[in-house]
Amino acid sequence: MLRMRPTTLPPSDNVFTWPVRIYWEDTDAGGIVFYANYLKFFERARTEWLRAKGVEQRQLQQDTGCIFVVSDVQIKYLRSARLDDQLLVTAHLSELGRSSFTIHQEALLIAKDAAPVVLCKGSVRVGWIHGQTSKPARIPPDLQQALKG
Amino acid sequence: MLRMRPTTLPPSDNVFTWPVRIYWEDTDAGGIVFYANYLKFFERARTEWLRAKGVEQRQLQQDTGCIFVVSDVQIKYLRSARLDDQLLVTAHLSELGRSSFTIHQEALLIAKDAAPVVLCKGSVRVGWIHGQTSKPARIPPDLQQALKG
Amino acid sequence: MLRMRPTTLPPSDNVFTWPVRIYWEDTDAGGIVFYANYLKFFERARTEWLRAKGVEQRQLQQDTGCIFVVSDVQIKYLRSARLDDQLLVTAHLSELGRSSFTIHQEALLIAKDAAPVVLCKGSVRVGWIHGQTSKPARIPPDLQQALKG
Amino acid sequence: MLRMRPTTLPPSDNVFTWPVRIYWEDTDAGGIVFYANYLKFFERARTEWLRAKGVEQRQLQQDTGCIFVVSDVQIKYLRSARLDDQLLVTAHLSELGRSSFTIHQEALLIAKDAAPVVLCKGSVRVGWIHGQTSKPARIPPDLQQALKG
Repeated sequence: MLRMRPTTLPPSDNVFTWPVRIYWEDTDAGGIVFYANYLKFFERARTEWLRAKGVEQRQLQQDTGCIFVVSDVQIKYLRSARLDDQLLVTAHLSELGRSSFTIHQEALLIAKDAAPVVLCKGSVRVGWIHGQTSKPARIPPDLQQALKG
Repeated sequence: MLRMRPTTLPPSDNVFTWPVRIYWEDTDAGGIVFYANYLKFFERARTEWLRAKGVEQRQLQQDTGCIFVVSDVQIKYLRSARLDDQLLVTAHLSELGRSSFTIHQEALLIAKDAAPVVLCKGSVRVGWIHGQTSKPARIPPDLQQALKG
Repeated sequence: MLRMRPTTLPPSDNVFTWPVRIYWEDTDAGGIVFYANYLKFFERARTEWLRAKGVEQRQLQQDTGCIFVVSDVQIKYLRSARLDDQLLVTAHLSELGRSSFTIHQEALLIAKDAAPVVLCKGSVRVGWIHGQTSKPARIPPDLQQALKG
Repeated sequence: MLRMRPTTLPPSDNVFTWPVRIYWEDTDAGGIVFYANYLKFFERARTEWLRAKGVEQRQLQQDTGCIFVVSDVQIKYLRSARLDDQLLVTAHLSELGRSSFTIHQEALLIAKDAAPVVLCKGSVRVGWIHGQTSKPARIPPDLQQALKG
């Protein structure tokens, strides 16, 4: 998959966050959130990060015939969440290339009278591909602008 | 949704069964299988029941532009399954109409040196619709034959 | 499972609602929400309905050793939701017994400049059981009060 | 989390494989398998890899009070699977420490008259922890032997 001339973006205070509540569906028989489900939470936060930039993915797919697909995930699990826990999931663009971007994400446990605790953190590389052929495509300029903005 | 002249089929010994193993992903913090997941198991067994009749759904969608969708579910939960349990899921056609069919399904716990135990049982009505318009369609004659056979 | 002397409750305008957004995780290759996932949405709304009454299920399990489990589901699917759709899920107690209750639930599609559309509706019977033995238990008086209130 | 004196194991032909069929539940509205679901497939293969060594995790939890939890995942997605596809998922121990192990895993697409195609590949680090305290524990000698064998 192409990764030409990526632009490393400066860190910023402008980290997007999205709340996620833990329901029965998210937990497993160990009493904790099943590890794959954090990838769902990360995807929800990315979707809302895009929506906050005016990008609705179903509309985008209809307009361009292209979709975002994940090409790479690295995630470290530090602590566990449990039923009824309230999380905050972050999304912070760390690199933007011609046909992909990389986003840094964390899931934080939010509790009363306590500092947020990082449950897991990772980075997700997302490619922009043709829906039919699965071939990488060049991210359109206005979508590039939206991702940066 | 249409349900014209349904044909009630006679019960038979010819009940299709499909094995399902319980993994961490299927369980919840109660230590048991999350209730919605039995609908996944039922769907797997219906898919394999169709496949055993020569019906591959992705191919079918490409050939006809139509898909099967569930229109009605009734399910009773009697006992719980747990991690590592081995189940058998049944599928038995109980009614076949012009644009839908109803299938009776059960999930059974299989254990060594014990009779199978019914964990849940229900019936699922499945309609045949146009993929784009979501309008009911008439099930083609050869597909009707396959479902009956 | 016991169902002694159920009290049929009068309908009321006081229907609880909970918003659900449709993400990639909820959809399937038919382009619509996978049928089992509505049971997740229903469960989220029931959990929030309980939370609004002051009932936190993890705490409740620690305090009583008992949990709520679904014993019966009936659901009719009328229309499909798609990626990015915004739903509202309702929860309305329809019957309260000594060791179980029945709740009526709907998922509605909310769109700009349009009346809400019912996507699916059903009823869910929930039993109160001992976590270890899975035997039905009598719902404690204060929990009964909370459910009614 | 501890990672003392890990033993790097030699590669071998003895790679465990487990078949996974793609059902509706696994796909998303892009027509492909949702990225988080490969972590489910990897977990199924690890569970069966353990079972093939005589390790049943529910029994193990009851006997020791400890459970395996994932602490680290790296995964590269190369190609997509679709409805009805038949996959083979591999599991190959690459490192074994005192309280954790690392396993290399791949998902391969199996098609008639074609060589297997790698869909995604990654490595998963799994820790052994106390179920109640979530603190790392030393993997018992006989379990160490089973993992190596």
